[in-house]
Amino acid sequence: MSQLPGPAEHLKEETLSSQELLRGNFLHALRDQVRLPDGSQASREYVRHPGAVVIVAELPDGRYVLERQWRYPLHRAFIEFPAGKLDAGEDLLACAQRELREETGYQAREWAYAGPMHPVISYSTEVIHIFFARGLEAGAPKLDQGEFLDVFPASLEELLAWSRDGHLTDGKTLSCLLWAQNLRSGLWPLTWTDRV
Amino acid sequence: MSQLPGPAEHLKEETLSSQELLRGNFLHALRDQVRLPDGSQASREYVRHPGAVVIVAELPDGRYVLERQWRYPLHRAFIEFPAGKLDAGEDLLACAQRELREETGYQAREWAYAGPMHPVISYSTEVIHIFFARGLEAGAPKLDQGEFLDVFPASLEELLAWSRDGHLTDGKTLSCLLWAQNLRSGLWPLTWTDRV
Repeated sequence: MSQLPGPAEHLKEETLSSQELLRGNFLHALRDQVRLPDGSQASREYVRHPGAVVIVAELPDGRYVLERQWRYPLHRAFIEFPAGKLDAGEDLLACAQRELREETGYQAREWAYAGPMHPVISYSTEVIHIFFARGLEAGAPKLDQGEFLDVFPASLEELLAWSRDGHLTDGKTLSCLLWAQNLRSGLWPLTWTDRV
Repeated sequence: MSQLPGPAEHLKEETLSSQELLRGNFLHALRDQVRLPDGSQASREYVRHPGAVVIVAELPDGRYVLERQWRYPLHRAFIEFPAGKLDAGEDLLACAQRELREETGYQAREWAYAGPMHPVISYSTEVIHIFFARGLEAGAPKLDQGEFLDVFPASLEELLAWSRDGHLTDGKTLSCLLWAQNLRSGLWPLTWTDRV
């Protein structure tokens, strides 16, 4: 049986004050003054993020729906599972269904929630909720203005080989592949629900 | 055989200009004006990061060296593999050896480079280089002023169970676990080198 570490109160950092550093069109950054466990003080700078979803959508032939998108900060295209930010107040599953439909055109009959992952625990509040989808029906994507991406199918074996060889390095997609590999082998079962 | 997608020139975003948005103590943010594939323009805001390493260090009994650290942006402690930022001009392996020693006290006889992962392709330049280490010798950690963390051993089975159950959600650590699982099963072999 796995034994999780106990309470973490001895590591806790308490907020003393919070200051807005940047309110951009996309980036929202803050600097908080905190009290450390030994009573001393430090500042913590971080990005506030609304949260996001990522969708591992399985085609009838067992392959998954992938995207390739230009990621400007790194000046190159990345292979990734479809993903997108939560709108204010949006339900997680509704967001996953919307993003899959808008970016790839696919609608799925069955959905399963795998869990959350945190891509940047050192400087962002972002959480990405991992969904699996199956029973796909193809349709037409509805990309946002200025959004350009390729949609293509890939097998689990291909995706794992690309990850091993450094062609697939996106963190959320690697986290999803840990799920996909263990779902396929039967180790990490999911609870599927029909779309209402 | 895996067939990678072809050239991505049709997705490329070209830099037109770049502006500093924020120069914090830790966060460095920029806003670039870019030309999209259809000739229209957009702005891209992102964080510039020096890059980092993460270390999957295996103990003689097969368990790994884990840390638990308070991650202020999310107001809770996370289970994660030891990691840290690159100093300016620092060699990747030297950084991995330094971070493992400073944070956990361990020194390793053998090292292997698994590859890079990108935790935040949408709004950061950060890359995290994944290293494996074995042949560990215990020593005394040398934490930075104001750095507080727990160091503890955990088996691959425990780490996978915690990931499945949502107790381990750090993206870099999940990416490392995809590597660890496939290394253990023999699917993703590594090339080990003795520390010089």
